[in-house]
Amino acid sequence: MIQKYSFENSIPTDSVVMDIPVSTKMPEYLTVVKEEKHIIYHMKRQDIVYGLGEATRGINKRGYIYSSNCSDECSHTEEKQSLYGAHNVLFVKGKRNFGLFVDTSQRVTFDIGYTDMDQLLIRVENGGFDLYLVEGESLDEIVAEFRGLIGQSYIAPKWAFGYQQSRWGYKSEEDIRNVASQYEQADMPLEAIYLDIDYMERYKDFTINTETFPQFEQLVSDMKEKGIHLVPIIDAGVKIEKGYEVYEEGVEKGYFCKTEDGEYFTAGVWPGKCHFPDFMDKDARIWFGSKYSFLIDKGIDGFWNDMNEPALFYTDKGVKEFFEFADTLRGENLDIDKVFALRDKMEHLSNNEEDYRSFYHKLNGKMICHDQVHNLYGYFMTRAAREAFDLLYPDREILLFSRASCIGSHRYGGIWTGDNCSWWSHLLLNIKMMPSLNMCGYLYTGADIGGFGCNISEELMIRWIQFGVFTPLFRNHSALGTREQELYRFKNQDVMRNILKLRYSLIPYLYSEYLKAAFQNTMLFRPLAFAYPEDAHCEQVEDELLLGESLLLAPVYEQNARGRYVYLPEKMLCIKYRSLTDMEQTVYEKGHHYIKAGLEECIFFIRPNRLLVLGNEANRTTELKEEAYQVIGFEAEEAVYELWNGYVVKNGLRKPKKKCYTL
Amino acid sequence: MIQKYSFENSIPTDSVVMDIPVSTKMPEYLTVVKEEKHIIYHMKRQDIVYGLGEATRGINKRGYIYSSNCSDECSHTEEKQSLYGAHNVLFVKGKRNFGLFVDTSQRVTFDIGYTDMDQLLIRVENGGFDLYLVEGESLDEIVAEFRGLIGQSYIAPKWAFGYQQSRWGYKSEEDIRNVASQYEQADMPLEAIYLDIDYMERYKDFTINTETFPQFEQLVSDMKEKGIHLVPIIDAGVKIEKGYEVYEEGVEKGYFCKTEDGEYFTAGVWPGKCHFPDFMDKDARIWFGSKYSFLIDKGIDGFWNDMNEPALFYTDKGVKEFFEFADTLRGENLDIDKVFALRDKMEHLSNNEEDYRSFYHKLNGKMICHDQVHNLYGYFMTRAAREAFDLLYPDREILLFSRASCIGSHRYGGIWTGDNCSWWSHLLLNIKMMPSLNMCGYLYTGADIGGFGCNISEELMIRWIQFGVFTPLFRNHSALGTREQELYRFKNQDVMRNILKLRYSLIPYLYSEYLKAAFQNTMLFRPLAFAYPEDAHCEQVEDELLLGESLLLAPVYEQNARGRYVYLPEKMLCIKYRSLTDMEQTVYEKGHHYIKAGLEECIFFIRPNRLLVLGNEANRTTELKEEAYQVIGFEAEEAVYELWNGYVVKNGLRKPKKKCYTL
Repeated sequence: MIQKYSFENSIPTDSVVMDIPVSTKMPEYLTVVKEEKHIIYHMKRQDIVYGLGEATRGINKRGYIYSSNCSDECSHTEEKQSLYGAHNVLFVKGKRNFGLFVDTSQRVTFDIGYTDMDQLLIRVENGGFDLYLVEGESLDEIVAEFRGLIGQSYIAPKWAFGYQQSRWGYKSEEDIRNVASQYEQADMPLEAIYLDIDYMERYKDFTINTETFPQFEQLVSDMKEKGIHLVPIIDAGVKIEKGYEVYEEGVEKGYFCKTEDGEYFTAGVWPGKCHFPDFMDKDARIWFGSKYSFLIDKGIDGFWNDMNEPALFYTDKGVKEFFEFADTLRGENLDIDKVFALRDKMEHLSNNEEDYRSFYHKLNGKMICHDQVHNLYGYFMTRAAREAFDLLYPDREILLFSRASCIGSHRYGGIWTGDNCSWWSHLLLNIKMMPSLNMCGYLYTGADIGGFGCNISEELMIRWIQFGVFTPLFRNHSALGTREQELYRFKNQDVMRNILKLRYSLIPYLYSEYLKAAFQNTMLFRPLAFAYPEDAHCEQVEDELLLGESLLLAPVYEQNARGRYVYLPEKMLCIKYRSLTDMEQTVYEKGHHYIKAGLEECIFFIRPNRLLVLGNEANRTTELKEEAYQVIGFEAEEAVYELWNGYVVKNGLRKPKKKCYTL
Repeated sequence: MIQKYSFENSIPTDSVVMDIPVSTKMPEYLTVVKEEKHIIYHMKRQDIVYGLGEATRGINKRGYIYSSNCSDECSHTEEKQSLYGAHNVLFVKGKRNFGLFVDTSQRVTFDIGYTDMDQLLIRVENGGFDLYLVEGESLDEIVAEFRGLIGQSYIAPKWAFGYQQSRWGYKSEEDIRNVASQYEQADMPLEAIYLDIDYMERYKDFTINTETFPQFEQLVSDMKEKGIHLVPIIDAGVKIEKGYEVYEEGVEKGYFCKTEDGEYFTAGVWPGKCHFPDFMDKDARIWFGSKYSFLIDKGIDGFWNDMNEPALFYTDKGVKEFFEFADTLRGENLDIDKVFALRDKMEHLSNNEEDYRSFYHKLNGKMICHDQVHNLYGYFMTRAAREAFDLLYPDREILLFSRASCIGSHRYGGIWTGDNCSWWSHLLLNIKMMPSLNMCGYLYTGADIGGFGCNISEELMIRWIQFGVFTPLFRNHSALGTREQELYRFKNQDVMRNILKLRYSLIPYLYSEYLKAAFQNTMLFRPLAFAYPEDAHCEQVEDELLLGESLLLAPVYEQNARGRYVYLPEKMLCIKYRSLTDMEQTVYEKGHHYIKAGLEECIFFIRPNRLLVLGNEANRTTELKEEAYQVIGFEAEEAVYELWNGYVVKNGLRKPKKKCYTL
């Protein structure tokens, strides 16, 4: 049951799609201090707190303090309170189960037993908000109710479940063709190659660098012929440059954010000085969205929206202040205070709070300061693109995901989890984030496999793809200057290849469970405690996940580990996958086990009386042939698996196609 | 057996205390490429590589690349290749066990299966080196031989095994007195309070800020009366200030490092511009060492040497270049390249390689560039202090530990592991570093308990002290601006107090095992595989340690965990400690176990036929009374524990005092 409480919420977020009447009676276990905008819940010792989507630390968020403030955060270390998304929802499991969603465009702080170990304190920092309280029997039920409230999740095209290769550093057509042919030569599947900022002419949105990509359309079509999609990046900032169409149009029509004085707001990003489309303004959204046609009409059918927190490298004002401050230090004996102050000034050049307070959006005819809608900016950029796709290409499935997000944007596209590192701890973070993201409606999601920053080791890459095979977005991505990590570059190519082949074999099940999660408002990845609420030990398990109805995942995420502890809440069948023709099957009883897993072995588990439909060997999703699918299961003589293998659109409504499998 | 191979090593490190004849015959499993200074070993799949002392990642160092380059590194993330110490020793466990020590003052790279998963490649970057190959049956034996080669480890005074409180932020006598009285009021043990940089007059070594510490000697003596030692910090850099005695003397006598032109080298650190004592010069060492008397004569009997990599915040040259570069950007449209270049310039203001190449030391009458002896600087600062203590105060036990180090300095003092963070992963790193540090001779060592940077949660503090009770250096330390973390500030004071009481109860055993490790060249903390070489699973265990002859540690290091998996290589007695009067004892069989551990429960294990001598309740080490000691053990009717409870000095030789205990 959902109850809504309203606290002078004046800025519509469109996060919610249902109209719920406002209640006034608050249950006694929640205290709302209206003046201070505090929501307080006294946690019992055994309470678990789930939620917050894209955030650091555990699946159980208890024990730290978080803030929803979409941030261009390149270092996902444990102390960080905000990443790129604003996902203001918590689910408490305890004697009483409930969910709390704070619907606001503004910053919210979640102090989950950090200041006081026993207290959950939610603080809305500014402005009004709506509070939704979702009560129910089970967490599954509560999450499903919440997901109904926020609307159906985005469904990605099936090809986007294939393996994808990206790198900031592909500079030319040759680079792209080379990646494709290297994968081909290595007999490794590949479904997409990403175009990071270098495909553009000096980082200008909706342009092509014709020097390095002289035959862009030919490239797109050659790749498409091989079954490889090209996915270009689109940044939020639009370069200020005379004669550049997007800039000129935006200026002429008034589609960019403005300062208090009515000037267009300027800040530096990749191309240098930019203006920023006012995605809060419907006309600007329609306009910006229509620009994607420049690429779609060249054969492109997938995009990733980036830098849309928005990231601001600097403003003129910041640079001026920096130089002025620096000038005061010239010739000085720089002691501790001065050195730190200079460093601080430099650090605050980027993504500065003051800059976020210095520009404005047009919202329903009113000017509204950016800091009040900061968390909506990336969301509304995603929306701009999707609404244009729906309008202009109603029959095309176009992939779209974003870095910044806010609940609501899950209806328009996916997200990736931003600039992580080639750290073992970030593989584990990837694992822990998946169910939290699902709770918020983000189903098409995943991390930069292998890590974006820092240099990867071969072992980390192997272990990471052994988990990545299970995430909908399965993209290898890395930063300029780091060790190259395309899978064909490593010594153990056989191991890499076999894992990629497993991916394709898993796609029938993965895509099917994805569709179920989207249509039924359920989670693809679930913490064990969601499925086994009576099993107290499940609440302790932070490194295993349920994937759909049949699988339990227990990835290896530690350097030099050749096995791991696995807790099984019931008897299960362990698949020790080495290759499509070498899958060892062993039944384990309910309880704690240490299970060996050599570097080349990807382990996962099938629940009793459930089935896994495995696809044939394939290097593209299009090579998957239903007649060649196989079924695995145990103690499942009566079991039926309903494979959702796509959907049909009738009268604008999508209906899944289903097929039943038995052992 | 130790063999020495010499490759034109011209700079003495004094890391080694034994004179080993030079061999020429290299065993066939090692390849030395003389021209490139490469040492290559082809690793078998099962080989484990231990060593490297203070370094990131696992106990088993395989799978990453490290560099020995003493660094002022404030972010101990996984990709870091160097921390503060240069500990050039590896121990390989495989079909053949051996150790390799590269004795050089210069940088060495250890590529342990990073570039090629199967290859160990050691690369000496510059200059000559001596290579010591230690062969033997067991790793214990090999480490002991190596430790004999590098000489007996420093023995800290017994009081330094008590609990110690520190924080960068204690600004005055009142602050210090307040910390002492708060611990007293909370009935929490406390043996030392640290004085970070604020006790000095504007960060000048061997001065007191008489405004904030007007009665320093009185403070020292009042604290001593309470059984609390004050431990001031000493930084490497000496402020340039007319009339400041240390500066004036150093300049007059030529004791500071010089540039090529014969000017004194200048760089900025805490006090602003400083000169740097030339610790490579014996006369300068004697001089600087004698300066500690300023504090010792005021009653001080412990020091921590800091910033001695040496950290350099900036040089005039760097600042000039920075400003010049910044000037070229004035008024420019800062695009990606320019913004990154400016950030880069700022970042490289500090601890710049070029600066390290721009000054010189006097070594045996010759001028030698700093970059050739960089890794010895902190080591020789520690040595300066210790040699002065031995000379001037032969009968006093003075605590000394350092941030920077190089093998050899372990004879003169301990180290702490530098500026970690309040991260759960750094608690785990603390656990993993301990045995590696012990291998290199660092016995008096530990991390900043609770984490130096970032804000701690109460739960992390509880779990961290539950491990910290076992480390010789048991110091709570944190940085300015972070959440205050003195133990009396938290809600669960009972839990904190009971853990501190456990520490004092453990001191008899801990100090005894410490003395054994120092006198017998053994390790206080050992990976399980050292003690159970035939048990293949032990090689996989990265989160348990043996402590001395009787204990196995399995600390809880995960947020919200209320238990953990423990592998026992033999039957053991689990102590679930809640308080001195509430210790649950359970025997577990050899094998894998999930053992519950509530937040207030500190678990550890006693090996069969071994004994643990537990001291009485105490708030100071001086309150420990042998007549009140108790003995715990199981299946140990015949067992004898030899308690080493101190040592006597006769004819300059130290002899341990021993006493036998039985069940």
